[in-house]
Amino acid sequence: MKFCPHCGNTVVLRIPEGDDRERHVCSSCEVIHYSNPRVIVGCLPVYEGKILLCLRAIEPRRNYWTLPAGFMENGETSVQGAARETWEEARAKVENTELYRVFDVPYINQVYMFYRCELVAGEHSAGPESLDTCLYAESEIPWDNIAFPVISQTLKEYFPDAERDNYPVRVSSVDHRPRPK
Amino acid sequence: MKFCPHCGNTVVLRIPEGDDRERHVCSSCEVIHYSNPRVIVGCLPVYEGKILLCLRAIEPRRNYWTLPAGFMENGETSVQGAARETWEEARAKVENTELYRVFDVPYINQVYMFYRCELVAGEHSAGPESLDTCLYAESEIPWDNIAFPVISQTLKEYFPDAERDNYPVRVSSVDHRPRPK
Repeated sequence: MKFCPHCGNTVVLRIPEGDDRERHVCSSCEVIHYSNPRVIVGCLPVYEGKILLCLRAIEPRRNYWTLPAGFMENGETSVQGAARETWEEARAKVENTELYRVFDVPYINQVYMFYRCELVAGEHSAGPESLDTCLYAESEIPWDNIAFPVISQTLKEYFPDAERDNYPVRVSSVDHRPRPK
Repeated sequence: MKFCPHCGNTVVLRIPEGDDRERHVCSSCEVIHYSNPRVIVGCLPVYEGKILLCLRAIEPRRNYWTLPAGFMENGETSVQGAARETWEEARAKVENTELYRVFDVPYINQVYMFYRCELVAGEHSAGPESLDTCLYAESEIPWDNIAFPVISQTLKEYFPDAERDNYPVRVSSVDHRPRPK
């Protein structure tokens, strides 16, 4: 940020009075502009024991498989956002959403919230950001072509949980950028 | 937002190509500026069955009791943010943090994440944003003087959960601004 979104004058980085970290502060109108983590909401849609994955049509990780997910928008709940992303990316309707997995990714200022849910009628098809969509049984998951580590980890945890019919909500953080292969 | 934080020229509200909602877009450099919900992280610190509450020293709801909580910052995890807020507001250290309660508050574009945790050594004192801090047993909770509905609801759910030693992670949304009394 170089300019104040309120008045258009230049901003400076300084620690405001009563604060303990640097913020962008307008040199003219003195408004403090905060920057905070963003929430990524997504679904793990299940139909007859299979998981719905989307083949990404966009970078990063085009041509790799992912769970439907994206940035939570203003004015919606995290559940609504997860369902919206699932519709946008996989033209799939979901129900019985239950929070399942939370990841903090502090190095890119993101929090992931994945909801376990049922895929209505087993229906799905590629939305504009997907090349393909597919329901995968555990033995069919394309493990070498999963888009992001948080997706692999969520899938690896899911199948043993489903076996036990016990789905604890896990929270963990991804502390390092994945190394390029 | 009236001015582009990147180049200082005016922004307009319009739907970018490939998008389906209005964004602030710079009329000069064409950068799209997204606005997304913010995360509030907090703790429900427990010591010998009692809950640590803070008497707010700042508006809104000065002189009402709350759980320690505040905006998650860039570069931290939600657990770290919850612990940081608990130190800042109640000079309390916590351990064994477990996600306990999630609230969506779409009308103000916020997501609350409360962590259940143990208060180390039962030690606490008022930080700069608190007038007082106190450990309350269930029968002592000042129900008529709780700052926000999400705090009352979390406390009401906690004690029966503690009785059963079973703490499901609940997610719900607050759909309307509370009416003034």
